[in-house]
Amino acid sequence: MFKIIAKDNKARLGILKTAHGELKTPFFMPVATKATVKTLTPEDLESCDVKVLISNSLHLFLKPGLEVLEKHGGLHKFMRFEGAIFTDSGGFQMIRKGFFVRADESGIIFRSPYDGQKYLFTPEFSKEVQMRIGSDVAMMLDYCAEYPASYEEAKRSVELTTKWAQKFPKNTKEQLSFGIVQGSIYEDLREKSAKDLSNMDFDGYGIGGLSIGEPKKVMHRMVEIVDGILPENKPRYLMGVGSPLEIIESVIRGVDIFDSVFPTRNGRHGTAITSEGMLNLRKAEFKNDMQPLDNECQCYTCENFTRAYIHHLLREKEILGMHLLSLHNVCFMIQFMKRLREEIEQGNLEKFKKEMERIYGT
Amino acid sequence: MFKIIAKDNKARLGILKTAHGELKTPFFMPVATKATVKTLTPEDLESCDVKVLISNSLHLFLKPGLEVLEKHGGLHKFMRFEGAIFTDSGGFQMIRKGFFVRADESGIIFRSPYDGQKYLFTPEFSKEVQMRIGSDVAMMLDYCAEYPASYEEAKRSVELTTKWAQKFPKNTKEQLSFGIVQGSIYEDLREKSAKDLSNMDFDGYGIGGLSIGEPKKVMHRMVEIVDGILPENKPRYLMGVGSPLEIIESVIRGVDIFDSVFPTRNGRHGTAITSEGMLNLRKAEFKNDMQPLDNECQCYTCENFTRAYIHHLLREKEILGMHLLSLHNVCFMIQFMKRLREEIEQGNLEKFKKEMERIYGT
Repeated sequence: MFKIIAKDNKARLGILKTAHGELKTPFFMPVATKATVKTLTPEDLESCDVKVLISNSLHLFLKPGLEVLEKHGGLHKFMRFEGAIFTDSGGFQMIRKGFFVRADESGIIFRSPYDGQKYLFTPEFSKEVQMRIGSDVAMMLDYCAEYPASYEEAKRSVELTTKWAQKFPKNTKEQLSFGIVQGSIYEDLREKSAKDLSNMDFDGYGIGGLSIGEPKKVMHRMVEIVDGILPENKPRYLMGVGSPLEIIESVIRGVDIFDSVFPTRNGRHGTAITSEGMLNLRKAEFKNDMQPLDNECQCYTCENFTRAYIHHLLREKEILGMHLLSLHNVCFMIQFMKRLREEIEQGNLEKFKKEMERIYGT
Repeated sequence: MFKIIAKDNKARLGILKTAHGELKTPFFMPVATKATVKTLTPEDLESCDVKVLISNSLHLFLKPGLEVLEKHGGLHKFMRFEGAIFTDSGGFQMIRKGFFVRADESGIIFRSPYDGQKYLFTPEFSKEVQMRIGSDVAMMLDYCAEYPASYEEAKRSVELTTKWAQKFPKNTKEQLSFGIVQGSIYEDLREKSAKDLSNMDFDGYGIGGLSIGEPKKVMHRMVEIVDGILPENKPRYLMGVGSPLEIIESVIRGVDIFDSVFPTRNGRHGTAITSEGMLNLRKAEFKNDMQPLDNECQCYTCENFTRAYIHHLLREKEILGMHLLSLHNVCFMIQFMKRLREEIEQGNLEKFKKEMERIYGT
């Protein structure tokens, strides 16, 4: 399933086999929570060489519902994406408004924000939902504590997550199962969670409950602890991360997989990720700027349009502006990950990190 | 410039030569008021075979401004559209909130809704703006009366439009100049306006001040009167029209050119134009519908997605839903016009009209 090809200190270069293609790690997944990477068509994703994305099984279970998805032959065909698809379980929606009712040993009760109906998601049912959605990688049902969380609350999140992990079906044909490490910002709890899950036969491991408000240094420390415990030969996925700099910091600590709304949300809000840093295209300074968003980028947006045009579209609240920026940002992240893999291969990660710090550091 | 190839009663099949290509008439122009056909890229437009669109010189003059456009080498390069571009003068913005201050013999004073600054648009200045924008066809500065308008007001609109028409530069290299007939819903005023302008050396004629609230029958009557007077060998452009049925009704009366936000506005609001009629994809009946929007359409949307997927996107307020519908609707209108031209060629227009009435009639 997962093979490590090269290493640069703790950073790893690998290949993850899925039912929809072999994925070179480290990789970054654009987010398609509701069966669409916001503003982009599958053709756009292909033009950016996107080979994997992540959707959300709780959201999809509620809308459009399993019946509609199964009628289409699964999520891939519904949204017409031919690459690999991860699905999150919904554990993260515990800390989002409008979904969570309560959790106990049996699982999580969610309430539909559409009609108020309640559903018990057991670990087994979460896996069943993800199987029926037809994703390539299912994330286990996990208990995600808010930040900040008391030690007691964080302890409970680890205990329940471990219990659910035991029940979450593994070794399923066509779909990989990933565990998720919890423990908030408490070192001993992260250790315990990572150890508990390491003993189970997951195909890979998510690191959850981070990047939700805690200081960056704390996040890095948690990743270090967890990556020191998780089995070497399994991929590690830092959920909800992130920016180019956060990704490098995590890859250096042994993380292989990432996802974030960073490129799409920034795109919709008018910010471009470029090789010169982050650019807020709404600023007046771009009114007359004849350059592409990024001189080093070959995406459709950069090959065709000036910053001045995109500035104009954003100022006029034209949807095309959000689209062109999202397209560029997703392409940028994919290209960034290619570069990152090359740097690992060449043993240049520390140098690359310093270069990126100069560009994106604050 | 304009050549008539075939006729079916009053309906005409022709070719209009512009600096950016020869256009087969009758044709329909998607609207790109602010230098974008809403939600669509130029690549999308090309995929639909869009060869001509219309923008608005007053809007562009205010934002992004002539300086930015000229720096790009004109509107075509700014928005990266290689087909022909018409520009409206801004006369229509007299009846839109936020622009109009007053009009007299010298022209129209507009106020910028961005900064409150006032600008006098004389006929000569309107042409200059459109030349600097670099459009292929400039519409004259016209006095557009609201609907309903008193006879006095409509008379004034015709008198001023005639005076401005005399001053509006014609026979300009690289850019055609079109007159605009006004006169509200008064037969004698429409007659006078059409006669006044027919004597001037315009390259074509817009029919303005219609499709703004008057009954359809009244619009058709006005078109009949005007088309009976305008020179046979010049193209006629019914501004702001319309739906497939309105277009047929007008082509039968001798109109050659159309523009409307009909496909894009409907697309953003969740309605598809199909060969079965108008479909509101937000309706629950499409939740499980595995068909494409239109079984007879080969656009990207119809080749790839089900109505169920688009229904889901619209219900979730995903921008991709608006995009896919707008793309289909624009493609549909272009295909519809191709079909319409074929029917004229074969002398089948009356039969085609009846077929369309069955589909789109109310």
